[in-house]
Amino acid sequence: MRLLLIHSDHIDYQARKKTPVAEEGAVLEDELDEALVAFCAVESSDEEDIDDVIVRATSEIEKTARELNTDRVLIYPYAHLSSDLSGPDAAKKVLKGMEEALTAAGGLTVRRAPFGWYKSFTLSCKGHPLSELSRTIVPGGAEGEAKPAKKEVTH
Amino acid sequence: MRLLLIHSDHIDYQARKKTPVAEEGAVLEDELDEALVAFCAVESSDEEDIDDVIVRATSEIEKTARELNTDRVLIYPYAHLSSDLSGPDAAKKVLKGMEEALTAAGGLTVRRAPFGWYKSFTLSCKGHPLSELSRTIVPGGAEGEAKPAKKEVTH
Ligand SMILES: [Mg+2]
Repeated sequence: MRLLLIHSDHIDYQARKKTPVAEEGAVLEDELDEALVAFCAVESSDEEDIDDVIVRATSEIEKTARELNTDRVLIYPYAHLSSDLSGPDAAKKVLKGMEEALTAAGGLTVRRAPFGWYKSFTLSCKGHPLSELSRTIVPGGAEGEAKPAKKEVTH
Repeated sequence: MRLLLIHSDHIDYQARKKTPVAEEGAVLEDELDEALVAFCAVESSDEEDIDDVIVRATSEIEKTARELNTDRVLIYPYAHLSSDLSGPDAAKKVLKGMEEALTAAGGLTVRRAPFGWYKSFTLSCKGHPLSELSRTIVPGGAEGEAKPAKKEVTH
């Protein structure tokens, strides 16, 4: 899984149009202030151990939210972060599993944007050094920063 | 190069803090309405032929801007789109080269956000089916959609 975590002043979204794999029964419109937005691309390798990916991704998001002192999280499906996506059923399982696990962790308001819809959104990123973080989560493996440690992080 | 192209109602940014590789002399604050925002991650493979990458990326951005009927483009460095970044000098050359080539193409207002700064930003994505596109550009190779064609694009 590729994760892009953005510490935001504001996020809102509105589901506009279904794709062929659109999720039913989801929240089609929402907004949050002072939130950690977790843009997620579930990848084909995640299908090897969905439960493990959920645990690892949830742990990373929860840790980041605590560090940033925010108690609001929005899980936002974002296919464009990866060139090797999982199938849609696996993606929906992972995303819903993350929502449940983060809610169960306690102390966080957790929302989830719908999978498989074209959505408009407005996002304000705070811009401090920890306000944009990317992670690659691998089932059974060591997750870490998306960029090799020996290279400088540039923006 | 990884490209994420977002057709936006509004984008604004403000450079907040330098990283060790911060570009000097750039525009530290700007905003555009009705623009195509081109988030760019220059990758290590791009260093093999910088001029070719500039041509290919510029062509892709110009084509998309014409299709979307927008005449404003913001080039925005975005390291978090790749786990295999180029060095900072190559990245700056590519990004500046893209700005020059897109300007030379004619008919477009072209702006570029500074490389190597932590930036706050606000972005509004329109949400229509072509308002978010990702591309992988490879020097000397065939560029294309970031997702394998046989898999459905999901959001
Ligand atoms: Mg606005």
